[in-house]
Order: sequence, then structure tokens, then C-alpha cells
Amino acid sequence: SEFKVAILTVSDTVATGLGPDRSGPRAVSVVNSSSEKLGGTIIVATAVVPDDVQKIKDMLQKWSDIDKVDLILTLGGTGFTPRDVTPEATKSMIQKETPGLLYVMMRESLKVTPSAVLSRAAAGIRGSTLIINMPGNPNAVAECMEALLPALKHALKQVRGDKREKHPRHI
Amino acid sequence: SEFKVAILTVSDTVATGLGPDRSGPRAVSVVNSSSEKLGGTIIVATAVVPDDVQKIKDMLQKWSDIDKVDLILTLGGTGFTPRDVTPEATKSMIQKETPGLLYVMMRESLKVTPSAVLSRAAAGIRGSTLIINMPGNPNAVAECMEALLPALKHALKQVRGDKREKHPRHI
Amino acid sequence: SEFKVAILTVSDTVATGLGPDRSGPRAVSVVNSSSEKLGGTIIVATAVVPDDVQKIKDMLQKWSDIDKVDLILTLGGTGFTPRDVTPEATKSMIQKETPGLLYVMMRESLKVTPSAVLSRAAAGIRGSTLIINMPGNPNAVAECMEALLPALKHALKQVRGDKREKHPRHI
Ligand code: NA
Repeated sequence: SEFKVAILTVSDTVATGLGPDRSGPRAVSVVNSSSEKLGGTIIVATAVVPDDVQKIKDMLQKWSDIDKVDLILTLGGTGFTPRDVTPEATKSMIQKETPGLLYVMMRESLKVTPSAVLSRAAAGIRGSTLIINMPGNPNAVAECMEALLPALKHALKQVRGDKREKHPRHI
Repeated sequence: SEFKVAILTVSDTVATGLGPDRSGPRAVSVVNSSSEKLGGTIIVATAVVPDDVQKIKDMLQKWSDIDKVDLILTLGGTGFTPRDVTPEATKSMIQKETPGLLYVMMRESLKVTPSAVLSRAAAGIRGSTLIINMPGNPNAVAECMEALLPALKHALKQVRGDKREKHPRHI
Repeated sequence: SEFKVAILTVSDTVATGLGPDRSGPRAVSVVNSSSEKLGGTIIVATAVVPDDVQKIKDMLQKWSDIDKVDLILTLGGTGFTPRDVTPEATKSMIQKETPGLLYVMMRESLKVTPSAVLSRAAAGIRGSTLIINMPGNPNAVAECMEALLPALKHALKQVRGDKREKHPRHI
């Protein structure tokens, strides 16, 4: 069946109504247009939270443990400012790290801009949910997804425990 | 003297006798044919364990703390499925992380296949033992070793505490 | 105002007077000649400590929490020998990891020498201080700084909490 996807915009500005959520809708659009390459996806939830560790953790926990979504993309809060805490919230919730996803996002993002080094994105697995931090910039979402696409379908199948996916090359 | 190497195949399938160990013998062959470039190696142990955190940890501990091997290569259990726990077992046993080894293995493996991003391999030092996770795919072992060869001899000498190796360029 | 920079040479040899500090003065020179690209810098402190976790931590804490420097560069102690503990000391002091900085230092250093994989450098943020481990080799300092320069000014502004720097592309 289709992979359930949830998208979390992390932004004080958006959460307090001081600005529009530009990255959330962009991520929805990127996931929908990548759906076929991902083996079929359905976006089951979107939400906005401020840059607050506990509020981020609460959403990640609900979507992972209760709603059993297959993939959570977070948007924003990955930079170097004092308010950027999305990676810390994420790392406290994942049980397994997935460094290869970070590697390809960094490598490809750096081809677009040197400020990609300022992403502190984390990624990993909680139960049967894959959680990936993406930068808040709307263009970055598309670039990061592009970097992940060649292997993300296999990743999602494995996280789900699909045995036929258990021994692809290089795992 | 020669570096003592131990090779641990991590696989439910192999451990329960449901399939042959293809990666273990391949790793033995790869290490033996790389022996000269590694400064001389002798394989002192091989073993197979299931994808079980405690069983993996027990072997890593025995080979590090009791048998004092210089290098442990683990094979398999680095993917995204629920049973893949080799990196978690490894990270709980190492005292120092060695991220550069992971970087070059990822970089070189991605030249072969995009599914290399699905490796969650860890690597690090416990006492005087270097522990490196490799994917279970037999071909991946050769590719990862190729990536490590330019610096692995120096790495092993340093882990052993060889003072002449203490200040090479870039350390 | 200018960014306050402190430079910590980590070396048993230098700390015990058995050899000169070659990397410290080189780092001072590199920072000073990069000052303009970094948005203006002033070196407020330099020190030498042995390869001792507690002594490294004490200096990082003093410079971060009391002296409120913007950037700490450590030099040395990042290799694989038993005495190399700078990354472990650093990781115990940072509150946020900054993996992108490590990525570009590794990538660029590997263009110079394969032994760059032997750097176990860590980097991250403590309060309003960015801490970056660099290898002890004097040439490596220049190479690592070169790798960081395209984004380091933005990084420092963000760490300081400069709101205008909050939403550059890719964060
Ligand atoms: Na690269």
C-alpha cells in the first residue's frame, strides 16, 4: 500500500502567524510529484510548530507511534541560531541514525550553495517511521528530495520490514 | 608484528543455517589480498552471529578486550530494516568514533550504487581495536576495503599506539 | 562588532616543552589573513594544553561560558592514537553538532592527502560559541580554514543570534 507521509513545518514566524508557511506547501507539492518514484505516497498530515524542542518531539511521537506514518519530513530549524533545535529534537526521538541520507543531502545541497554547510539536519528511524530533517528554505526541499529519490523508495520499504527489500546490494 | 584481524558475519539467515555465508569468506579473501598494503595481516578469528544486539556486542567485546585483535570487520546488519542493529551494537561498544572511515566508504560506495545511502555503518575504536561495519553484500566488502586502503595501515599503527605514526600530515 | 577567536593547541609534546608550537602561530596567521572574509575577527586568547580530556574541557568551558568568545579552534589530538582525545572532550562540551563543517573539512582535506580520513574532528555550538576541531598539522589548519571560509561568516553571525542571518538559503 501507499507510504503515509507527514510534513512538519518548524518555524516561530509561521507558528505565531507573522508569516506564511512557504516550505510546507512546497514540500507537499514535491512529495506528490515524486510519488511514483517513491512507490506511491499519500500525505496524511501537515502541521506547523514553533522552534520548541518539546513541541517538535510531541508531533514526531504522535505521527510515529500513534499514526504510524512511514515518512516524516521536518522543514526548518536546522541552522546555527539559538532557536534552531529541530535536529536536537529529532535525535532525541530516533532509535537508529541514517547517516547516508544526510551525506547525499549535504553533497547535493553544496552543489547549489556553500551555505548548505549550515544545515545541521538529522535523520533516522523510530519504530517503523523514517524521519528526515530538511532546511526551511522552500527550494531546499526540492533539492534535498532530488538527492534522496534514488534510494528513498528502498529505504521506506526496508523501514516497513519488507523482507524482499532486505538484501539489496550494499546493505 | 602483523595486524590481527577478526571478521564477524551478522545475519539471521546464516546464523540459523538457512543460507550460506557469502560475505565472510569474501572478506577473508579481501583482507588476505590487501595484507601487504595493510602492513601485514593475519586473520585470527571469524564468526557468525544473528542480528541480535547482545550477541554482536559479546563478540566485539571478546575480540577487543580479551583477544586484543587490531581490526574487527563486521559484515551485514547495517540497513534500514527492523532487524538491522549492527551499527547500534557497534556504537555502544566503541569509545571513539572514526567518521573519516565512514565518509570514504560512503563516497566510494555511492559511485557503485545509489543504494549505498542505505548503509548505516558505524566505525570506531575500542581500546586498541579498530571496529568497522561493512555492508553484508559480498561485493561491498571489496569496495569498502578499496576505499579504506590508502589510510588503513596508518590507522592501525596509530590505534596500536605507534609513536612514529603519531604526527602524520593532517592528524 | 568583530568576532572574538580563541585558539587551543592540544599537544603533550608542546605542553611539556619538548617541542615548539608550530600549529598555534600558523592558526593565528590563518585567522588574521581570513579576517575580512569572516566579517572581522580579533584573536583574544591562545593556549596550549596536553592531550588530557579534562584540561581540554576546562579551556573550552572558560572560553565559551566566561569569555564568551565567538569561535574556538582547537589544533591537534584528533587522530587514532590512544592519546588523541580532543574530539571526545569537544563532544562532551557542545550542545549542538554542526556536521556540515566536518563534511567540507573532510572533503577538502582528502583532496590534499588520503590520511585526512584519520581526522576524527568534531564541531559544534556551546551557548554562543562555535567550536571546531582541526588537525595539528600546521598546513592542515590553512586547508581546513579554506574549506570553511565560504560559510563561516554566516555561521558565526547565526551563532551570535543575528536575526538578519536567520533565514539564508538552505537553513
Ligand atoms: Na563528497
